[in-house]
Amino acid sequence: MAAKKMQDLMVEELRDIYHAEKQLIRALPKMQKAASAESLKQAFEQHLEETRHQVERLEQIFEELDMRTRGRRCEAMEGLVEEAQEMMEEGLAPEVLDAALVAAAQKVEHYEIASYGTLRAYAEALGHEKITQLLDQTLEEEKATDQRLNQLALSEINKRAIGESEAA
Amino acid sequence: MAAKKMQDLMVEELRDIYHAEKQLIRALPKMQKAASAESLKQAFEQHLEETRHQVERLEQIFEELDMRTRGRRCEAMEGLVEEAQEMMEEGLAPEVLDAALVAAAQKVEHYEIASYGTLRAYAEALGHEKITQLLDQTLEEEKATDQRLNQLALSEINKRAIGESEAA
Repeated sequence: MAAKKMQDLMVEELRDIYHAEKQLIRALPKMQKAASAESLKQAFEQHLEETRHQVERLEQIFEELDMRTRGRRCEAMEGLVEEAQEMMEEGLAPEVLDAALVAAAQKVEHYEIASYGTLRAYAEALGHEKITQLLDQTLEEEKATDQRLNQLALSEINKRAIGESEAA
Repeated sequence: MAAKKMQDLMVEELRDIYHAEKQLIRALPKMQKAASAESLKQAFEQHLEETRHQVERLEQIFEELDMRTRGRRCEAMEGLVEEAQEMMEEGLAPEVLDAALVAAAQKVEHYEIASYGTLRAYAEALGHEKITQLLDQTLEEEKATDQRLNQLALSEINKRAIGESEAA
Protein backbone atom coordinates (compact mmCIF):
# COMPACT_ATOMS: atom_id res chain seq x y z
CA MET A 1 0.00 0.00 0.00
CA ALA A 2 2.73 2.46 0.93
CA ALA A 3 4.56 1.58 -2.31
CA LYS A 4 1.55 2.81 -4.18
CA LYS A 5 1.62 5.91 -2.07
CA MET A 6 5.10 7.00 -3.15
CA GLN A 7 4.05 6.32 -6.73
CA ASP A 8 0.85 8.31 -6.07
CA LEU A 9 2.92 11.23 -4.88
CA MET A 10 4.85 11.14 -8.16
CA VAL A 11 1.61 11.05 -10.13
CA GLU A 12 0.20 14.02 -8.17
CA GLU A 13 3.36 15.97 -8.88
CA LEU A 14 3.16 15.03 -12.57
CA ARG A 15 -0.42 16.30 -12.71
CA ASP A 16 0.60 19.52 -10.98
CA ILE A 17 3.40 20.28 -13.43
CA TYR A 18 1.22 19.26 -16.40
CA HIS A 19 -1.34 21.88 -15.37
CA ALA A 20 1.47 24.37 -14.74
CA GLU A 21 2.95 23.84 -18.23
CA LYS A 22 -0.48 24.27 -19.81
CA GLN A 23 -0.89 27.59 -18.02
CA LEU A 24 2.55 28.63 -19.20
CA ILE A 25 1.61 27.89 -22.81
CA ARG A 26 -1.19 30.43 -22.42
CA ALA A 27 0.96 33.00 -20.61
CA LEU A 28 4.10 32.99 -22.78
CA PRO A 29 2.52 34.55 -25.90
CA LYS A 30 1.27 37.46 -23.73
CA MET A 31 4.74 37.90 -22.25
CA GLN A 32 6.26 37.77 -25.73
CA LYS A 33 3.83 40.44 -26.93
CA ALA A 34 4.57 42.66 -23.92
CA ALA A 35 8.36 42.42 -24.38
CA SER A 36 10.21 45.18 -26.28
CA ALA A 37 13.72 43.77 -26.76
CA GLU A 38 13.90 41.50 -29.79
CA SER A 39 16.24 39.13 -27.92
CA LEU A 40 13.65 38.71 -25.16
CA LYS A 41 10.80 38.18 -27.61
CA GLN A 42 12.91 35.45 -29.23
CA ALA A 43 13.71 33.85 -25.88
CA PHE A 44 9.98 33.64 -25.05
CA GLU A 45 9.18 32.29 -28.52
CA GLN A 46 11.87 29.62 -28.17
CA HIS A 47 10.70 28.68 -24.69
CA LEU A 48 7.09 28.37 -25.89
CA GLU A 49 8.22 25.86 -28.49
CA GLU A 50 10.26 24.00 -25.86
CA THR A 51 7.33 24.00 -23.42
CA ARG A 52 5.10 22.35 -26.05
CA HIS A 53 7.66 19.55 -26.33
CA GLN A 54 7.80 19.28 -22.54
CA VAL A 55 4.02 18.84 -22.43
CA GLU A 56 4.32 16.04 -25.01
CA ARG A 57 7.02 14.45 -22.87
CA LEU A 58 4.66 14.52 -19.87
CA GLU A 59 1.94 12.89 -21.99
CA GLN A 60 4.46 10.21 -22.92
CA ILE A 61 5.18 9.67 -19.21
CA PHE A 62 1.49 9.20 -18.40
CA GLU A 63 1.40 6.68 -21.23
CA GLU A 64 4.42 4.86 -19.78
CA LEU A 65 2.53 4.69 -16.49
CA ASP A 66 -0.56 3.43 -18.29
CA MET A 67 -2.53 6.37 -16.98
CA ARG A 68 -4.82 8.91 -18.55
CA THR A 69 -3.14 12.30 -18.91
CA ARG A 70 -4.75 14.64 -16.43
CA GLY A 71 -3.81 17.93 -14.79
CA ARG A 72 -4.35 19.06 -11.23
CA ARG A 73 -4.78 22.73 -10.41
CA CYS A 74 -1.35 24.20 -9.70
CA GLU A 75 -1.90 27.16 -7.38
CA ALA A 76 1.75 28.11 -7.33
CA MET A 77 1.91 28.58 -11.10
CA GLU A 78 -1.39 30.44 -10.97
CA GLY A 79 0.22 32.86 -8.52
CA LEU A 80 3.31 33.23 -10.71
CA VAL A 81 1.23 33.90 -13.83
CA GLU A 82 -0.96 36.34 -11.88
CA GLU A 83 2.14 38.27 -10.77
CA ALA A 84 3.45 38.42 -14.34
CA GLN A 85 0.04 39.68 -15.48
CA GLU A 86 0.08 42.43 -12.85
CA MET A 87 3.56 43.50 -13.96
CA MET A 88 2.29 43.98 -17.49
CA GLU A 89 -0.49 46.26 -16.24
CA GLU A 90 1.63 48.49 -14.01
CA GLY A 91 2.52 51.00 -16.71
CA LEU A 92 6.27 50.48 -16.44
CA ALA A 93 8.60 52.04 -19.02
CA PRO A 94 9.10 49.44 -21.82
CA GLU A 95 12.76 48.83 -20.89
CA VAL A 96 11.84 48.40 -17.24
CA LEU A 97 8.95 46.10 -18.13
CA ASP A 98 11.45 43.90 -19.99
CA ALA A 99 13.47 43.57 -16.78
CA ALA A 100 10.28 42.69 -14.89
CA LEU A 101 9.32 40.09 -17.50
CA VAL A 102 12.71 38.38 -17.20
CA ALA A 103 12.23 38.25 -13.41
CA ALA A 104 8.76 36.73 -13.78
CA ALA A 105 10.02 34.17 -16.29
CA GLN A 106 12.93 33.18 -14.05
CA LYS A 107 10.53 32.56 -11.18
CA VAL A 108 8.56 30.26 -13.45
CA GLU A 109 11.75 28.46 -14.50
CA HIS A 110 12.76 27.97 -10.89
CA TYR A 111 9.37 26.52 -10.04
CA GLU A 112 9.84 24.06 -12.88
CA ILE A 113 13.44 23.25 -11.91
CA ALA A 114 12.27 22.40 -8.37
CA SER A 115 9.35 20.34 -9.67
CA TYR A 116 11.23 18.38 -12.33
CA GLY A 117 14.17 17.89 -9.96
CA THR A 118 11.81 16.33 -7.42
CA LEU A 119 10.04 14.24 -10.06
CA ARG A 120 13.34 12.99 -11.45
CA ALA A 121 14.44 11.89 -7.96
CA TYR A 122 11.10 10.13 -7.33
CA ALA A 123 11.18 8.35 -10.70
CA GLU A 124 14.74 7.21 -10.13
CA ALA A 125 14.02 6.00 -6.60
CA LEU A 126 11.00 4.08 -7.92
CA GLY A 127 13.09 2.47 -10.66
CA HIS A 128 11.33 4.07 -13.65
CA GLU A 129 14.33 4.32 -15.97
CA LYS A 130 12.61 5.60 -19.10
CA ILE A 131 10.63 8.20 -17.16
CA THR A 132 13.76 9.34 -15.33
CA GLN A 133 15.43 9.98 -18.69
CA LEU A 134 12.47 11.95 -20.02
CA LEU A 135 12.31 14.09 -16.89
CA ASP A 136 16.04 14.64 -17.02
CA GLN A 137 15.82 16.03 -20.55
CA THR A 138 13.20 18.56 -19.47
CA LEU A 139 15.09 19.45 -16.29
CA GLU A 140 18.21 20.26 -18.31
CA GLU A 141 16.16 22.41 -20.71
CA GLU A 142 14.63 24.37 -17.84
CA LYS A 143 18.06 24.99 -16.30
CA ALA A 144 19.38 26.15 -19.69
CA THR A 145 16.42 28.52 -20.12
CA ASP A 146 17.04 30.00 -16.70
CA GLN A 147 20.71 30.52 -17.57
CA ARG A 148 19.79 32.11 -20.91
CA LEU A 149 17.42 34.53 -19.18
CA ASN A 150 20.07 35.32 -16.60
CA GLN A 151 22.63 36.17 -19.25
CA LEU A 152 20.08 38.25 -21.14
CA ALA A 153 19.28 40.23 -17.99
CA LEU A 154 22.91 40.86 -17.06
CA SER A 155 24.29 41.51 -20.54
CA GLU A 156 21.48 43.61 -21.95
CA ILE A 157 18.03 43.94 -20.38
CA ASN A 158 18.98 45.41 -16.98
CA LYS A 159 21.51 47.77 -18.58
CA ARG A 160 18.87 49.05 -20.98
CA ALA A 161 16.45 49.50 -18.08
CA ILE A 162 19.06 51.58 -16.25
CA GLY A 163 20.37 53.27 -19.44
CA GLU A 164 16.87 54.43 -20.18
CA SER A 165 16.83 55.83 -16.67
CA GLU A 166 20.09 57.73 -17.20
CA ALA A 167 18.95 59.09 -20.55
CA ALA A 168 15.68 60.36 -19.10
CA MET B 1 11.65 59.51 -14.05
CA ALA B 2 12.58 56.21 -15.66
CA ALA B 3 15.49 55.94 -13.21
CA LYS B 4 12.98 55.99 -10.45
CA LYS B 5 11.02 53.34 -12.28
CA MET B 6 13.83 50.78 -12.24
CA GLN B 7 14.33 51.59 -8.57
CA ASP B 8 10.54 51.22 -8.10
CA LEU B 9 10.69 47.78 -9.65
CA MET B 10 13.35 46.80 -7.13
CA VAL B 11 11.25 48.14 -4.27
CA GLU B 12 8.17 46.22 -5.47
CA GLU B 13 10.23 43.05 -5.63
CA LEU B 14 11.59 43.72 -2.13
CA ARG B 15 8.03 44.12 -0.82
CA ASP B 16 6.99 40.90 -2.54
CA ILE B 17 9.78 38.82 -1.00
CA TYR B 18 9.26 40.48 2.39
CA HIS B 19 5.65 39.32 2.37
CA ALA B 20 6.77 35.90 1.10
CA GLU B 21 9.30 35.48 3.94
CA LYS B 22 6.69 36.47 6.50
CA GLN B 23 4.36 33.78 5.15
CA LEU B 24 7.19 31.28 5.31
CA ILE B 25 7.80 32.09 8.98
CA ARG B 26 4.20 31.05 9.64
CA ALA B 27 4.38 27.94 7.42
CA LEU B 28 7.70 26.44 8.56
CA PRO B 29 6.62 25.50 12.11
CA LYS B 30 3.65 23.59 10.62
CA MET B 31 5.96 21.79 8.21
CA GLN B 32 8.35 21.00 11.04
CA LYS B 33 5.51 19.58 13.10
CA ALA B 34 4.25 17.48 10.17
CA ALA B 35 7.71 16.00 9.45
CA SER B 36 8.67 12.61 10.90
CA ALA B 37 12.40 12.32 10.18
CA GLU B 38 14.46 14.05 12.85
CA SER B 39 16.90 15.31 10.19
CA LEU B 40 14.05 17.01 8.33
CA LYS B 41 12.62 18.53 11.49
CA GLN B 42 16.05 19.96 12.20
CA ALA B 43 16.42 21.30 8.65
CA PHE B 44 13.10 23.15 8.98
CA GLU B 45 14.06 24.46 12.42
CA GLN B 46 17.37 25.72 11.09
CA HIS B 47 15.75 27.33 8.07
CA LEU B 48 13.18 29.07 10.27
CA GLU B 49 16.01 30.66 12.23
CA GLU B 50 17.75 31.64 8.98
CA THR B 51 14.51 33.07 7.56
CA ARG B 52 14.14 35.32 10.60
CA HIS B 53 17.61 36.73 9.90
CA GLN B 54 16.70 37.18 6.24
CA VAL B 55 13.65 39.22 7.26
CA GLU B 56 15.90 41.41 9.41
CA ARG B 57 18.22 41.83 6.44
CA LEU B 58 15.28 43.00 4.32
CA GLU B 59 14.33 45.49 7.03
CA GLN B 60 17.91 46.74 6.98
CA ILE B 61 17.63 47.18 3.19
CA PHE B 62 14.45 49.25 3.50
CA GLU B 63 16.32 51.37 6.03
CA GLU B 64 19.24 51.80 3.61
CA LEU B 65 16.71 53.00 1.05
CA ASP B 66 15.19 55.35 3.62
CA MET B 67 11.84 53.66 3.19
CA ARG B 68 9.28 52.27 5.55
CA THR B 69 9.35 48.45 5.62
CA ARG B 70 6.22 47.23 3.91
CA GLY B 71 5.09 43.96 2.30
CA ARG B 72 3.07 43.44 -0.84
CA ARG B 73 0.86 40.38 -1.20
CA CYS B 74 2.90 37.63 -2.85
CA GLU B 75 0.46 35.38 -4.68
CA ALA B 76 3.15 32.95 -5.77
CA MET B 77 4.22 32.19 -2.20
CA GLU B 78 0.56 31.95 -1.19
CA GLY B 79 0.15 29.26 -3.84
CA LEU B 80 3.27 27.44 -2.66
CA VAL B 81 2.16 27.50 0.97
CA GLU B 82 -1.35 26.41 -0.05
CA GLU B 83 0.12 23.41 -1.91
CA ALA B 84 2.24 22.46 1.10
CA GLN B 85 -0.85 22.72 3.31
CA GLU B 86 -2.81 20.40 0.99
CA MET B 87 0.04 17.86 1.06
CA MET B 88 -0.20 17.74 4.84
CA GLU B 89 -3.92 16.97 4.66
CA GLU B 90 -3.75 14.21 2.06
CA GLY B 91 -3.25 11.40 4.53
CA LEU B 92 0.07 10.24 3.12
CA ALA B 93 2.14 7.64 4.98
CA PRO B 94 4.55 9.55 7.30
CA GLU B 95 7.63 8.60 5.27
CA VAL B 96 5.92 9.63 2.04
CA LEU B 97 4.75 12.88 3.60
CA ASP B 98 8.38 13.65 4.45
CA ALA B 99 9.28 13.31 0.76
CA ALA B 100 6.37 15.61 -0.13
CA LEU B 101 7.46 18.18 2.46
CA VAL B 102 10.98 18.27 1.03
CA ALA B 103 9.50 18.86 -2.43
CA ALA B 104 7.31 21.70 -1.15
CA ALA B 105 10.26 23.27 0.67
CA GLN B 106 12.48 23.07 -2.40
CA LYS B 107 9.84 24.88 -4.46
CA VAL B 108 9.85 27.63 -1.84
CA GLU B 109 13.65 27.78 -1.94
CA HIS B 110 13.63 28.04 -5.73
CA TYR B 111 11.11 30.88 -5.60
CA GLU B 112 13.44 32.68 -3.23
CA ILE B 113 16.55 31.92 -5.29
CA ALA B 114 14.87 33.46 -8.36
CA SER B 115 13.66 36.47 -6.39
CA TYR B 116 16.92 37.23 -4.55
CA GLY B 117 18.90 36.56 -7.75
CA THR B 118 16.81 39.17 -9.55
CA LEU B 119 17.02 41.62 -6.65
CA ARG B 120 20.76 41.22 -6.42
CA ALA B 121 21.12 41.98 -10.15
CA TYR B 122 18.86 45.06 -9.86
CA ALA B 123 20.71 46.38 -6.81
CA GLU B 124 24.07 45.90 -8.50
CA ALA B 125 22.90 47.55 -11.73
CA LEU B 126 21.57 50.49 -9.70
CA GLY B 127 24.88 50.83 -7.85
CA HIS B 128 23.59 49.95 -4.36
CA GLU B 129 26.73 48.25 -3.04
CA LYS B 130 25.67 47.63 0.55
CA ILE B 131 22.26 46.29 -0.52
CA THR B 132 23.88 44.04 -3.12
CA GLN B 133 26.04 42.51 -0.39
CA LEU B 134 23.09 41.92 1.92
CA LEU B 135 21.07 40.29 -0.86
CA ASP B 136 24.04 38.17 -1.84
CA GLN B 137 24.31 36.76 1.69
CA THR B 138 20.67 35.70 1.64
CA LEU B 139 20.92 34.31 -1.90
CA GLU B 140 23.83 32.08 -0.86
CA GLU B 141 21.90 30.87 2.19
CA GLU B 142 18.87 29.98 0.06
CA LYS B 143 21.05 28.03 -2.38
CA ALA B 144 22.70 26.19 0.52
CA THR B 145 19.30 25.31 1.99
CA ASP B 146 18.13 23.94 -1.36
CA GLN B 147 21.28 21.84 -1.60
CA ARG B 148 20.84 20.57 1.97
CA LEU B 149 17.25 19.54 1.22
CA ASN B 150 18.38 17.87 -1.98
CA GLN B 151 20.99 15.81 -0.18
CA LEU B 152 18.50 14.93 2.54
CA ALA B 153 16.01 13.69 -0.07
CA LEU B 154 18.54 11.64 -2.01
CA SER B 155 20.49 10.22 0.92
CA GLU B 156 17.62 9.46 3.25
CA ILE B 157 14.07 10.74 2.83
CA ASN B 158 13.21 9.25 -0.59
CA LYS B 159 14.82 5.93 0.34
CA ARG B 160 12.77 5.75 3.50
CA ALA B 161 9.62 6.59 1.52
CA ILE B 162 10.40 3.72 -0.87
CA GLY B 163 11.75 1.43 1.87
CA GLU B 164 8.52 1.83 3.75
CA SER B 165 6.81 0.82 0.52
CA GLU B 166 8.92 -2.31 0.18
CA ALA B 167 8.42 -3.25 3.81
CA ALA B 168 4.66 -2.86 3.50
